[in-house]
Amino acid sequence: MININENFLDLQDSYLFSTIAKKVKAFQEENPDKKIIKLGIGDVTLPLANACVDAMKKAADEMLDSSTFKGYGPEQGYDFLKDKIIEFDYKRRGIDIEPDEIFISDGAKCDTGNIGDIFSKDNKVAITDPVYPVYIDTNTMAGRAGEFDKETGMYRNIIYMPCNAENNFEPELPKEVPDIIYLCFPNNPTGTVLDKTQLKKWVDYAKENKAIILYDSAYEAFITEEDVPHSIYEIDGAKDVAIEFRSFSKTAGFTGVRCGYVVIPKELNGYTKDGQEVSLNKLWNRRTCTKFNGVSYITQKGAEAVYSEEGQKQIKRNIDYYKENAKIIKENLEEAGYKVFGGVNAPYIWLKLPDGVKSWDFFDKLLSEVQVVGTPGVGFGPNGEGYFRLTAFGNRENTIEAINRIKNWK
Amino acid sequence: MININENFLDLQDSYLFSTIAKKVKAFQEENPDKKIIKLGIGDVTLPLANACVDAMKKAADEMLDSSTFKGYGPEQGYDFLKDKIIEFDYKRRGIDIEPDEIFISDGAKCDTGNIGDIFSKDNKVAITDPVYPVYIDTNTMAGRAGEFDKETGMYRNIIYMPCNAENNFEPELPKEVPDIIYLCFPNNPTGTVLDKTQLKKWVDYAKENKAIILYDSAYEAFITEEDVPHSIYEIDGAKDVAIEFRSFSKTAGFTGVRCGYVVIPKELNGYTKDGQEVSLNKLWNRRTCTKFNGVSYITQKGAEAVYSEEGQKQIKRNIDYYKENAKIIKENLEEAGYKVFGGVNAPYIWLKLPDGVKSWDFFDKLLSEVQVVGTPGVGFGPNGEGYFRLTAFGNRENTIEAINRIKNWK
Repeated sequence: MININENFLDLQDSYLFSTIAKKVKAFQEENPDKKIIKLGIGDVTLPLANACVDAMKKAADEMLDSSTFKGYGPEQGYDFLKDKIIEFDYKRRGIDIEPDEIFISDGAKCDTGNIGDIFSKDNKVAITDPVYPVYIDTNTMAGRAGEFDKETGMYRNIIYMPCNAENNFEPELPKEVPDIIYLCFPNNPTGTVLDKTQLKKWVDYAKENKAIILYDSAYEAFITEEDVPHSIYEIDGAKDVAIEFRSFSKTAGFTGVRCGYVVIPKELNGYTKDGQEVSLNKLWNRRTCTKFNGVSYITQKGAEAVYSEEGQKQIKRNIDYYKENAKIIKENLEEAGYKVFGGVNAPYIWLKLPDGVKSWDFFDKLLSEVQVVGTPGVGFGPNGEGYFRLTAFGNRENTIEAINRIKNWK
Repeated sequence: MININENFLDLQDSYLFSTIAKKVKAFQEENPDKKIIKLGIGDVTLPLANACVDAMKKAADEMLDSSTFKGYGPEQGYDFLKDKIIEFDYKRRGIDIEPDEIFISDGAKCDTGNIGDIFSKDNKVAITDPVYPVYIDTNTMAGRAGEFDKETGMYRNIIYMPCNAENNFEPELPKEVPDIIYLCFPNNPTGTVLDKTQLKKWVDYAKENKAIILYDSAYEAFITEEDVPHSIYEIDGAKDVAIEFRSFSKTAGFTGVRCGYVVIPKELNGYTKDGQEVSLNKLWNRRTCTKFNGVSYITQKGAEAVYSEEGQKQIKRNIDYYKENAKIIKENLEEAGYKVFGGVNAPYIWLKLPDGVKSWDFFDKLLSEVQVVGTPGVGFGPNGEGYFRLTAFGNRENTIEAINRIKNWK
């Protein structure tokens, strides 16, 4: 009899974005004349850089001729792209990464989801809370989360590390020692960061406990402040304890094109139950060769063009545009008396609601009274309750109008 | 302490293609004047159809304008592609498939590898032998294969179903009842098929035993004979017991572009340990939404163009070219006195070596004496010993020359 993976039955239905969509639709139907502005989405809106489109079209043309046609490529990605990543994303920050430490993928969601394949089911997982739901759901599927407790809104076997205004969004080193630690900075959804000193504590903690840090830096391109690390490998010793996830989605508008990469340093080891060291790079390489066939050649050529002179200029222009949106949202909401986090090194603005105001109540009021849509913080975890996420990915005009509506709102 | 998934330690190193590459390289270095012809690769060589390239370039251009830019798409794929798949691949064969029964992916390797996520670790797996190694390796990683027995060349917990000349490559219904049955027809590596009556036996057997059939029909476009099913859903009752995997890789030359799809009918159920029915379509949908972010919009537009009038003509031309290669190889080897299987409904020709000749010995002799490269059958599993795979994906001139060399070989 074909038995299912019963861990799937522990998954909680994710109603967040479907509930938002339903509420918005219902309101619009009742109020067809009202213009709703959405600052809730985490998707980019600006078009791709010309350099990337040109490169992809050229690559597509190569597929028309036997002599330049590309069939199966290396599962781990082409060196032409890895070399650029090494030069621009690492060497320029003083970090040495080898080509065979990089695995090109179709995005950070797949990578952060699939990485669990190489780890034991018995590892203890720690996440910051609020959090990107993929970290929790994929561990639930793998059997690491345990049962869901409806009262607390938490899985029993996951270590939740609250990040909120009280601790200035710096998670505390957990008392119960985890084996796998998910850190995402600049953070989704809070938009907050750790500086180098703060991140160093985590690297040391992981080393001390032979734990691993899964470091998601998908938003590093939005960093503006000096002491904020773009890569965890800027921290001494991080190569012994951390895997880093990167993405072209937010950096270069590739949410619909699909490209990202994982870095697994060769000095990084996991352990068998009896303490024998095993190279995680080798395990991931085997996983990659067995379950993946590489990213489209055309896509990889598009990603390579991100690093061309023209590409760099063009993506910078887009990122600056989103950053300016973030600044507008942040400064105006502060002027209007709101307590606001994030928005400086990230495209996300994390609004602390007045005491006692619940995330969903604020959502409903904001929609019905000024027709602005955001994301209720509690949708990202119990410690998101009382917060609200706005994103900087909208267009300028709508962003300004939305913020003016909120400012003039009584 | 971070523990690894120790099932990975049960994986056997796959030396097949790297050993071939090393031997070829060594021979060429010693014999720089000899022209080696490779009929070993499983990768296509003909360029893409113009229709596909045009569609991808057009889609890339859409990414240049905010009004046509595409960010995140549906994780399960766009309806424009699903609708074509339904019409061309199913409706025309009298099969009803709904759009939400199709999941567009980046290829059948990923799909056949990842599908295990939704099944219990305790399911018993049956594979035909010889076999596409991904089925075995991914089950080994998941803990379903057990220990490897070096003497037999088999994993202890896998049910091997020999396919060889003695049973005319029709696997027997196994005595020990499996929960998961992998069937790939037209078969890689043997190039053989099951007719409808033969496949019906498997559907009935699966139904009787509440087992599931994972049906890989990546090579269906090469079928020439009448009674050979292109889809398992041509068999009555198959929707209750089978998941089907399809790919644009061999059909349309997408090995470097990456697109495929899985069909999971809504009537298909798995079971909890206590016998409760659970929809596998729903489980896979959840897995897809959690660990995947959809295939590149540009790629999906390229795949859609496969079904355009021009696209259909162009891919047919390529497939016919490979089929003619297969025919040339098969007929000429038969003329030369070899026992040959496959090559009629598949791009693979499976050569039975004279009694007592081992796959690798034949490889070495063929390379050193006539400079033709193929793939030793034993590389696909113990029941491949004494066989040799040739592929029809080379160019015509080289294929003919290689076959002439073998015919004139003494």
